[in-house]
Amino acid sequence: MCTQHDDPYKQYQAELIEAGLLIPSGVRGVYGRSGTFENIIDQFEGLVTREGAFQNAEVMRFPPIFPRAHYARIDHINNFPDLMGSVHSFLGGEKEHQAMLGKFEAKEDWTSALSPAEVMLVPAACYPLYPTATGTLSAQGRVVDLKTFVFRHEPSDDPARMQIFRQREFVRLGTPEQALNHRNDWLARGQAILESVGLPVKKVLADDPFFGRGARIMKATQREQDLKYELVVPICKEDKPTAITSCNYHLDHFGISFDILQANGTPAHTACIGFGLERIALALLKTHGFDPQRWPHEVRSRLAMA
Amino acid sequence: MCTQHDDPYKQYQAELIEAGLLIPSGVRGVYGRSGTFENIIDQFEGLVTREGAFQNAEVMRFPPIFPRAHYARIDHINNFPDLMGSVHSFLGGEKEHQAMLGKFEAKEDWTSALSPAEVMLVPAACYPLYPTATGTLSAQGRVVDLKTFVFRHEPSDDPARMQIFRQREFVRLGTPEQALNHRNDWLARGQAILESVGLPVKKVLADDPFFGRGARIMKATQREQDLKYELVVPICKEDKPTAITSCNYHLDHFGISFDILQANGTPAHTACIGFGLERIALALLKTHGFDPQRWPHEVRSRLAMA
Repeated sequence: MCTQHDDPYKQYQAELIEAGLLIPSGVRGVYGRSGTFENIIDQFEGLVTREGAFQNAEVMRFPPIFPRAHYARIDHINNFPDLMGSVHSFLGGEKEHQAMLGKFEAKEDWTSALSPAEVMLVPAACYPLYPTATGTLSAQGRVVDLKTFVFRHEPSDDPARMQIFRQREFVRLGTPEQALNHRNDWLARGQAILESVGLPVKKVLADDPFFGRGARIMKATQREQDLKYELVVPICKEDKPTAITSCNYHLDHFGISFDILQANGTPAHTACIGFGLERIALALLKTHGFDPQRWPHEVRSRLAMA
Repeated sequence: MCTQHDDPYKQYQAELIEAGLLIPSGVRGVYGRSGTFENIIDQFEGLVTREGAFQNAEVMRFPPIFPRAHYARIDHINNFPDLMGSVHSFLGGEKEHQAMLGKFEAKEDWTSALSPAEVMLVPAACYPLYPTATGTLSAQGRVVDLKTFVFRHEPSDDPARMQIFRQREFVRLGTPEQALNHRNDWLARGQAILESVGLPVKKVLADDPFFGRGARIMKATQREQDLKYELVVPICKEDKPTAITSCNYHLDHFGISFDILQANGTPAHTACIGFGLERIALALLKTHGFDPQRWPHEVRSRLAMA
């Protein structure tokens, strides 16, 4: 074992790096993943796919960037400005390039030469979906299967708090009842899936990390309205379990923002379950050890590893 | 069939969107992918994995962002500034947030409130590897299996010119001979793989899209030194085939930049083959039609689809 840290987050981080499961990049919360780490995620995703097959979900895969114009319509800049990732590009010519290089070589801030690109980094896997769903739903509504890398600017030594990580989501668009049932059914189903691979998760009412002075009221309202649940399990600290999956009911927030309508013409309601894939891999490694070959037979079998 | 375009790029783009294979986002060159599209990529990757298994490559997966400090060491800002994606974040407090929101609501440029984050978007799948490889190689050197989303700011209606897409790479680090053999062997092997799924690729000497006045000389030098080959196949235009795979010998460029040394203490040489996964899917769809169920039996069998 390498260095011992008093901080349990730094300790687990050091163990993961020592074992070669995470590859440090030099930026906090940005890591490469080993083949073993990736395989855990692939196999867990396979399980989620099998358990979700009954839904006949539409599979859609969005890349980790999405339009700035859509970012502007989701209130993220109001609620979570500290987490955003804005993409900027160089649009100049030869002369501007020479000036930028001059600053770069003088170790000055050369980024003042850049312009905001048409895209932002994706903050949650379901955000890119809604703008493509404008229009009127059928009475059945829609179930969509999503996965992408999401970005959150929150540099941390907690290996479970990465700046960029993958979410696998099942999103429901439809009536209030369809959305709420999806959230509640998947909360139970998600808990069963995670327990079936040996993770002793607990279901907790939760809130989002709203920014600034208004945060307290936003969180309280979110809790009063019973909108967000998380499935948590200890990763680095027994008494501070980590959310590895969340189940959210968005009311008609996205329906209104992106003109998604129920069959009856009123704004659609939406809900999602999001599996935090890196966190689930980290929880499995913490719970069962760093060598998946030696995980309990029933876990390996569930993950189609054996 | 939907609208007819005189422009063959817009025409194929419209056909892909009409068929639901690509989902337009509103930004040129940024699309969602359908489940069918993703499955083609998954199955092609499986083939590449099987064909590359003899290498016993180390599997590493880096996310689509990497350290700004590493970006500063790869000459990208000199050679390809127009393609970069710089990530910017909001580091202010309550007061700065209010000011930013004021601009946002007034539809002014609110991004002046942002600061450059510690990361950039990844321009090529192998860039994040080299900074983690600092040190002295064994006599065997290394073979690394990589995949990530890469960003190139070049908005286009050519569906094969996406702003963000995936590269699957095999990278060799070692002696000049090891690197050059890897490049040459994989050039032949890559051609055979692509031909085996019915893509009539041609091997061509190529150059990178260097920026500005120096571009002509950079390209000529790259060609004279025989560093870059591409495997090209017609996608949108018969007489303008698209590069779907490239094989590059980097000499000791990355060895010097990141202090990667051969066993004898001199800078390591590196080489890579990069499969452009979205382009390969687009070439397969163009060649065999939009319904993979109806692709030729030998192609389906090669891709483990049948």
